[in-house]
Amino acid sequence: MFCCTALAVCLAACAAPDTQRVVYLADYLTPEAAESDAVPAVRAALARCAEIGATKLVLPGGRLRLRPDRAAEKYLFISNNDESLKRIAFDLAGLHDLTIEGCGTELLFTGFVSPFNLEGCTNVTIRDLEIDYTRTFHSEGVVKATGPGWLEIEFPEEYRCDIVNGCLRFRDEEGTVYPFSNLLEFDAERREPAFLANDFWLSGGTIPAEKLPNGRVRIRRDDLTATVGNVMVFGAAARYNPAFTLADCRGVAIRDVDLYHCGGMGVIAQRSDDIELSRLVVVPAPGKNRMISITADATHFVNCGGYIRMIDCVFENQKDDATNIHGLYMAVDRVTGPDRVLLRWRNSGQYGVDFIRAGMRLELVDNDNVETYAHRTVKSAERINKVYTEVTFTEPLPEGVERGHVVAADERYPEVLIKGCRMRGNRARGLLLGSRGPIVVEECYFHIAGAAILFEGDANFWYEQAGVRDVVIRNNLFENGNYGCRGWGAACIATGSRIPDRATSRYHRNIRVEGNTFRVFDPRIVHLYCTSGFRFAADNTIEPTTDYPYLLDEQRPFVAYDCDDIEIEKRN
Amino acid sequence: MFCCTALAVCLAACAAPDTQRVVYLADYLTPEAAESDAVPAVRAALARCAEIGATKLVLPGGRLRLRPDRAAEKYLFISNNDESLKRIAFDLAGLHDLTIEGCGTELLFTGFVSPFNLEGCTNVTIRDLEIDYTRTFHSEGVVKATGPGWLEIEFPEEYRCDIVNGCLRFRDEEGTVYPFSNLLEFDAERREPAFLANDFWLSGGTIPAEKLPNGRVRIRRDDLTATVGNVMVFGAAARYNPAFTLADCRGVAIRDVDLYHCGGMGVIAQRSDDIELSRLVVVPAPGKNRMISITADATHFVNCGGYIRMIDCVFENQKDDATNIHGLYMAVDRVTGPDRVLLRWRNSGQYGVDFIRAGMRLELVDNDNVETYAHRTVKSAERINKVYTEVTFTEPLPEGVERGHVVAADERYPEVLIKGCRMRGNRARGLLLGSRGPIVVEECYFHIAGAAILFEGDANFWYEQAGVRDVVIRNNLFENGNYGCRGWGAACIATGSRIPDRATSRYHRNIRVEGNTFRVFDPRIVHLYCTSGFRFAADNTIEPTTDYPYLLDEQRPFVAYDCDDIEIEKRN
Repeated sequence: MFCCTALAVCLAACAAPDTQRVVYLADYLTPEAAESDAVPAVRAALARCAEIGATKLVLPGGRLRLRPDRAAEKYLFISNNDESLKRIAFDLAGLHDLTIEGCGTELLFTGFVSPFNLEGCTNVTIRDLEIDYTRTFHSEGVVKATGPGWLEIEFPEEYRCDIVNGCLRFRDEEGTVYPFSNLLEFDAERREPAFLANDFWLSGGTIPAEKLPNGRVRIRRDDLTATVGNVMVFGAAARYNPAFTLADCRGVAIRDVDLYHCGGMGVIAQRSDDIELSRLVVVPAPGKNRMISITADATHFVNCGGYIRMIDCVFENQKDDATNIHGLYMAVDRVTGPDRVLLRWRNSGQYGVDFIRAGMRLELVDNDNVETYAHRTVKSAERINKVYTEVTFTEPLPEGVERGHVVAADERYPEVLIKGCRMRGNRARGLLLGSRGPIVVEECYFHIAGAAILFEGDANFWYEQAGVRDVVIRNNLFENGNYGCRGWGAACIATGSRIPDRATSRYHRNIRVEGNTFRVFDPRIVHLYCTSGFRFAADNTIEPTTDYPYLLDEQRPFVAYDCDDIEIEKRN
Repeated sequence: MFCCTALAVCLAACAAPDTQRVVYLADYLTPEAAESDAVPAVRAALARCAEIGATKLVLPGGRLRLRPDRAAEKYLFISNNDESLKRIAFDLAGLHDLTIEGCGTELLFTGFVSPFNLEGCTNVTIRDLEIDYTRTFHSEGVVKATGPGWLEIEFPEEYRCDIVNGCLRFRDEEGTVYPFSNLLEFDAERREPAFLANDFWLSGGTIPAEKLPNGRVRIRRDDLTATVGNVMVFGAAARYNPAFTLADCRGVAIRDVDLYHCGGMGVIAQRSDDIELSRLVVVPAPGKNRMISITADATHFVNCGGYIRMIDCVFENQKDDATNIHGLYMAVDRVTGPDRVLLRWRNSGQYGVDFIRAGMRLELVDNDNVETYAHRTVKSAERINKVYTEVTFTEPLPEGVERGHVVAADERYPEVLIKGCRMRGNRARGLLLGSRGPIVVEECYFHIAGAAILFEGDANFWYEQAGVRDVVIRNNLFENGNYGCRGWGAACIATGSRIPDRATSRYHRNIRVEGNTFRVFDPRIVHLYCTSGFRFAADNTIEPTTDYPYLLDEQRPFVAYDCDDIEIEKRN
């Protein structure tokens, strides 16, 4: 994000003819506030935007420091992140037809504060800015020595830590605690998850540790291993502060944003339509020697509709997948009347993310094979609390509805275009595609520790509704995937759904793979089950590499079982 | 609470002539629900009460089990307890002119659920019921052996625990974690805090521990001491679930309630008027061999008005004071205009407890001597978030308003009557009296580990507005107080305010002590500072005992400094 573009945009903004409806943050900001906490100025400027129905909010350029102290406060339930009473710097709730012209401004946050919250917004664009934090929500240290059941870690100064009750705790210079719940080793040279590295999940949110006289910290756990020189990442325990939270929005564009850090997902959208991400660049902050960019998925879309477009984005080194596009399954707790069910969330990451509305068409789904066996229309929905909702339908329930079955919205699936995006170095997988609308993935680059493209969705573990209907994967470069944890994917393009009864399930349908190049040390290109209709065209190219060792017996590039209509065309 | 009274009341309720406006919980309850979870039935019955404007809700008698699963949910800021998204069994918000006839029903809760929430209620009476929990929020174990820096504890079966990262964790049979943050030793014979016992505050919310082959748990900390045979109480880390929460209510009576346990204060009332507690009995559950009743103060009143009456109550073995009646001080963060200040809470237990309203008269107070130096009337108050509020006054601020000064409401102080109450065995103090309305304490029994009656209030630590104006303490029996931690009080009746500049402060005024009996091993009867007007009448009786050893040099029964008009009458 360099000056020439930013300047041109700012000049354009300044020269806007309808100056009455442009708000300049600079008018609310003293130099002292910019250097200490611009949040009160942001709130005042946004209040002015709401008051006059502004079409533009222009940021001043340069660096703004932003803190939680005087930020807006809301209890938010954000799917696949963590609910909490949050502080929000830019709370755009209820704003419409507004562009935030970042003018290249660096938004530098400190502490537990969410950058942008969009609720019930229509036609909002955010562009040309950077987001970073003075202290990351995760922590990183270099492995300096190892032994049986211990690692010696050297933490850079910014990851202050102490030992409490014999266990490790991270705090910043203000005393704020940064809890962690997992460890993952990253390769210091390749700057990606270490070869075959797996997550160490930590119970109790810490690990036994001692500070050594040389200033290092020795952490202890029986199964702990790592390579000296690599970076051990202490993953944030919760996802309280995504960078962009969208709920019940329509027409949101995020363009030319460099997202260096946040405490949760980069963009999480729920119950929203028509979302465009252009040149959203998620990478570790330049010059700060961090391994990790953001602490969870780069993007994530839940029960969205209209279009989802990701164009020319970069998703690197975030602590989870590049994207996940899916609906939500709520489980039947019990049938409470001929036309009534008590539903509950089974995945705590979905608590409170209500999506069921009167008039909505729900599918009733057998959790064993994830197949839809009936549809019903919602007459009314009574929210009991964040876990339970009771739904009455316009008609009686069919026979056989059982505890454990699930329901999901069966309407308004988004059309998805992912084009020209570059993904590498992150934990786990690339694209988790679960929309039943048309999906195109083209001209992307994948160097992913697990599967590059995964068809997930299940009704027993994550409770994420998926089951694609029309997917085109074309002209992408898949380079050396599946170098990370074995559990992150069985091939470049794979089914990953936890479906107990696979024989009776054809959950995913109509996937075409055309004109892609697979430069791979791992021969496993496609691994499918529960799929009906898959074509791997002759114009795909597979180029073997020896960039990583391949340690498995499996040599088949194409594996498919419990599938129909699988076509692997002969290549030249 | 025995059958004859309960039966008579229930018969009376059943025979109410206006049967249309009586709701019977039994009509919403199956026997299975009563034994598993009556909460959905309670919610349905309360919805019916609201619908018809019921005058009575009649409980069925017997035992009802109640769980958080399908309870109402609200984010509540409750002063001196802990804010959170709470589950509530009886959410009476907005109800008026209603009596809940308990009919002796035993409400037996499981998990993190608050029994009663009253918000914006007028003329509500709750009577004749018992409250207990299947698993307490604190934990108790018997000290079986001690050594340098360790104790061996034997936990009864109900306090299941495991060791995580070398530290102790309590969980119930469902896996719910019960966090703790402090230890306090109780005398197993006397069933009260052990002689001179002090709190061990635990950082990190746990303590290093190991399970021994004999089933005991050895906990480790350098300064840990206790007497073999005594009970170590692992105090609950948070106060999420008070039994009765009152906010913005008028005319609430709680009568004939046996409160055996809850996870916070027994009755906490904020911004409420006209509260009567009659025969509220807070004691450890009979027959369950528990040392502790509830986990915090028996009662607590914040910014209340009208009358507060506690008559014939029993407050025993709760983990904090019997009562505390005070206002709240918000601190000046900065002066933001000639007539404007940015205020902030300094005590996190007060976060979100907004009390400042347009039209309210605030006092401006010097935090050094806690003296009021000016008054202003609120023109408007803008809540920024749970910590900050910006206030604009109808007039300019006086000279000299500084960061650190505090403001409080200076109006509608409650008239307090505490009569015939019995207090013993609890942690810390008895009555913390801070109302500027007339206060009468009579015919009570005190056997308190610290001061029986304390005049607190400060503007630098707890930020609780006090400063009494008219107190009568008469015909009470004070028996062997101050046997606990030295910090809990310097005499039976004492000032306890943290006032840096005592010479210029006369914070408390006009206290009369008449006709009381002091049966004491500790000669310290009265200890005052910053008090103007105190009379200890000739008809008080002091009877020395040798029931506990007295270990201090201080032999003066009456100490007063930085005071005016102190009168200790000669006794016969």
